[in-house]
Amino acid sequence: MAGYVNTIKDFKTKENPEFLAKVKELQPILHHKNLSPVNRIELKKTEDNSWLIHGRKGYMPEKKLVLQKDTPLCLEFPNHQVGYIRFFLDVVGSPLDAPVHLRIKLGEIVEELGEDTKDYHGWLSSSWLQEEYLHVDVVPGWVELPRRYAFRYLSLEILNQSLKYQIGITNITGKTVTSAEEEAVEELPADADPFIKEMDAAAVRTLRDCMQLVFEDGPKRDRRLWIGDLRLQALVNYYTFRNMELVKRCIYMFAGITGADGRVGACFYIEPKLQVDDTVLFDYSLFFISCLYDYYEVTKDKEFIAELWPTALRQIELSKERLGFGGILKDSGDWWCFLDWGDNLNKQAGAQGVFIYTVKQAIGLAKIVEDEKALEMLEELCRQLTSSALSRLWDGQQQVFVSGEMRQVSVVSQVWMLLAGILEDGAANKLIDRLLAGEIQLPLSTPYMYHYFVEALFQYGRREEAVKVMKEYWGGMLEKGADTFWELYNPADDDFSPYGSKVINSYCHAWSCTPSYFIRKYHLK
Amino acid sequence: MAGYVNTIKDFKTKENPEFLAKVKELQPILHHKNLSPVNRIELKKTEDNSWLIHGRKGYMPEKKLVLQKDTPLCLEFPNHQVGYIRFFLDVVGSPLDAPVHLRIKLGEIVEELGEDTKDYHGWLSSSWLQEEYLHVDVVPGWVELPRRYAFRYLSLEILNQSLKYQIGITNITGKTVTSAEEEAVEELPADADPFIKEMDAAAVRTLRDCMQLVFEDGPKRDRRLWIGDLRLQALVNYYTFRNMELVKRCIYMFAGITGADGRVGACFYIEPKLQVDDTVLFDYSLFFISCLYDYYEVTKDKEFIAELWPTALRQIELSKERLGFGGILKDSGDWWCFLDWGDNLNKQAGAQGVFIYTVKQAIGLAKIVEDEKALEMLEELCRQLTSSALSRLWDGQQQVFVSGEMRQVSVVSQVWMLLAGILEDGAANKLIDRLLAGEIQLPLSTPYMYHYFVEALFQYGRREEAVKVMKEYWGGMLEKGADTFWELYNPADDDFSPYGSKVINSYCHAWSCTPSYFIRKYHLK
Repeated sequence: MAGYVNTIKDFKTKENPEFLAKVKELQPILHHKNLSPVNRIELKKTEDNSWLIHGRKGYMPEKKLVLQKDTPLCLEFPNHQVGYIRFFLDVVGSPLDAPVHLRIKLGEIVEELGEDTKDYHGWLSSSWLQEEYLHVDVVPGWVELPRRYAFRYLSLEILNQSLKYQIGITNITGKTVTSAEEEAVEELPADADPFIKEMDAAAVRTLRDCMQLVFEDGPKRDRRLWIGDLRLQALVNYYTFRNMELVKRCIYMFAGITGADGRVGACFYIEPKLQVDDTVLFDYSLFFISCLYDYYEVTKDKEFIAELWPTALRQIELSKERLGFGGILKDSGDWWCFLDWGDNLNKQAGAQGVFIYTVKQAIGLAKIVEDEKALEMLEELCRQLTSSALSRLWDGQQQVFVSGEMRQVSVVSQVWMLLAGILEDGAANKLIDRLLAGEIQLPLSTPYMYHYFVEALFQYGRREEAVKVMKEYWGGMLEKGADTFWELYNPADDDFSPYGSKVINSYCHAWSCTPSYFIRKYHLK
Repeated sequence: MAGYVNTIKDFKTKENPEFLAKVKELQPILHHKNLSPVNRIELKKTEDNSWLIHGRKGYMPEKKLVLQKDTPLCLEFPNHQVGYIRFFLDVVGSPLDAPVHLRIKLGEIVEELGEDTKDYHGWLSSSWLQEEYLHVDVVPGWVELPRRYAFRYLSLEILNQSLKYQIGITNITGKTVTSAEEEAVEELPADADPFIKEMDAAAVRTLRDCMQLVFEDGPKRDRRLWIGDLRLQALVNYYTFRNMELVKRCIYMFAGITGADGRVGACFYIEPKLQVDDTVLFDYSLFFISCLYDYYEVTKDKEFIAELWPTALRQIELSKERLGFGGILKDSGDWWCFLDWGDNLNKQAGAQGVFIYTVKQAIGLAKIVEDEKALEMLEELCRQLTSSALSRLWDGQQQVFVSGEMRQVSVVSQVWMLLAGILEDGAANKLIDRLLAGEIQLPLSTPYMYHYFVEALFQYGRREEAVKVMKEYWGGMLEKGADTFWELYNPADDDFSPYGSKVINSYCHAWSCTPSYFIRKYHLK
């Protein structure tokens, strides 16, 4: 996810000190590895204004490379990493009689090295671009870059130095950081399809690089916990790293600081202090229930569910307040619900789908904690929501769900209604056929929604088609050179960005890591 | 001083471990003070492309100022300082959902804030310009700038941030650093001329800001020990801070690592390790003798002189090797001797003057250490150098000293020959009259040479004229707003820089701090 959606003015919060104490107890250990670039690379701008790696030469850390002013040294790491960068600078010639002024860029894709930052005009802040200007006063010596970066590529350029010396560089080193334990991930069966293996490796790497002190959405951009991403990361984590404590920690965060009315926020910060963002989204608040539900499915930890149940139930109560005439959620023109990127997407039907989907999960939780009163309310609510959806949002003539006053038809609405499970199997499968045939307008925008589409296919037993979609969509990223999965991917438009520039997109993004969940849960080969 | 002069290829050195051990023992304690800016200022570009302070408003550290994108906040400190900068950033509005990207500039003069670094095209490296680009990931929080700066002015500018928040800033603080003890400086008599007091204060401040782990030449640019500057700083120090140990430390450095032949280098580095530069200058090597001589005059420390005497004597022996036909120093087109900035300045006569001047000081030292053999050699050398200078460099017809094959007449040559004391008083005073009347071409370029001119005036009892020159020259800087004395000042050209740009000049420069020496030694009022 990324921000700027439905910011609440004068947002008031309330805290649960017990939950926040748990958050601190569950702080994960961070693991580090040192690694070197594998290649020096040359970049070339193509005719369609993208950038290619034009040539590669092996990089040997001990071999001193002499940096030339205004000539970037570009390097490639073995794959996408999150962490810190250091290198050793040496003087060639006279002693350092003036500082070295360096520009360093880090990129998840080569475009981030090639493009000039001055040419960036996207609407997300350029402060996300990983570019540093550094003065080095003492050489020889180690230089450590000041921040944490997400990188597969690195460029170093001398902007100025004195005429008396030249600068040699050795031992360019990345120190990686993650709270994921790579050893915990089981290998896929030896006979698995190599493409499936590659997809799984990229998905696992994506999750690894997003697993820090929380499940971050993107280690390059946003670098924080969003509940929509958390839900998907947790699912993949259960089948890979199995770091249950990190999931608990994140759930405690969202329950530990909520809106004053008890609403779970959409996103959470941990620095300089634990703090919920003032962004509230209808679907994201409800996904708190999904997080709990999934966690129980894997751990059967009743005590934890009981502890968090009041927070979960509160999300249902608050969501009910948005119900309008005839049991349908009120629509509005603001960013009240996320669902997917897309300026024109109407959220009403999709939100209704999410509501039914999570009410059903809440029913499951109510049974676990044996909350009879809530169970009764939830079952009644589920019946009402379902019946309203079928009577008011299902267009019998077109045989699709429609959304909003303008009765918009979108893939997002269909997918969430399918996941809500309110159609009979026959009708559902016919709708799926039409989705697969591309007959429904307003396609999906993000890997996040593609996840839910694939989930729906599995839910209705459409395993083969699910694998096909995965191979086309996530496989498409691999074919374009990805080694972690991207925040955004439009097979029809390589330059797609909702932010106005490709270089600000995140190329290792949590909500895109779910192929490993499908591969491992459904034993895909 | 500044570099790029007479670099020796494959410079070999030798070390004296005992002296280097003393260097470590004598490491000074650094003193710190916190101070706040006094004013927010507005800058305005004038018609002649310089910058002025257009408006001032008081700065209150606790009052939160909200930074506006692309609108620099400019601040003025009470006076020139050397040290570190920190400030506290706070979020106004939503939490920090994207890093803050800041540009910070520090200036000794307002031009350094006003001018765009991109427009700098001087030949000294732009890496000296005090400009930082910083990403701040965590706000609220303190931000500390990464380096040590020399500053009187500071600007802070937000280059980018997200749309969701604004940044407030409080407690902008400078933490000063110096090895000078300000309390050690005696106040001038209460009845002293206010202009003399002001000149003294600026000179003391200049020296204070250059006194760090060594006597630096400029705390903004060069930031290292040059022996020509050391000699003048030590003189001022004897009459102000009286930090004798720092002088000893610097003398031990130059004696601790010399060229393989024993020649004292022109400049010295202390980081990452003690290291003499590969720059050698005829006059600068000889000033090692002056440093010892001056030190003895003040301390009467015979033991120290005896310890360093072999190094001092070695400079004479090496300098003798440059003597050519008729006992005159060989001239050459390279930067073999510094004397003063000026591309056209011929160094032969000035160097001969420096040689005689320092041989006379060496004679004084030989007597102290009772080195009869050396004394005999030095006295003979002094006679030869003097007689050669008078017979070959004195132009009886023009009544001036001439230099080089083209018999160049310059103020520098006259001043050094005056300091060498080889003319009779009558002839010397006539020459001084002509110098004061501006009759000699090729004027002085730097405060460094102005020092020696004033010293010559005092030497020949021209006290009133000396004070007049000081008031005109150093006083001229004060009138132009200086509160520390500059590396370069040409009363006729405000934009004078030997480096191609005014902003790279140093505005607190050691060799310019000698007014306090004159004021205090000669009890000027």
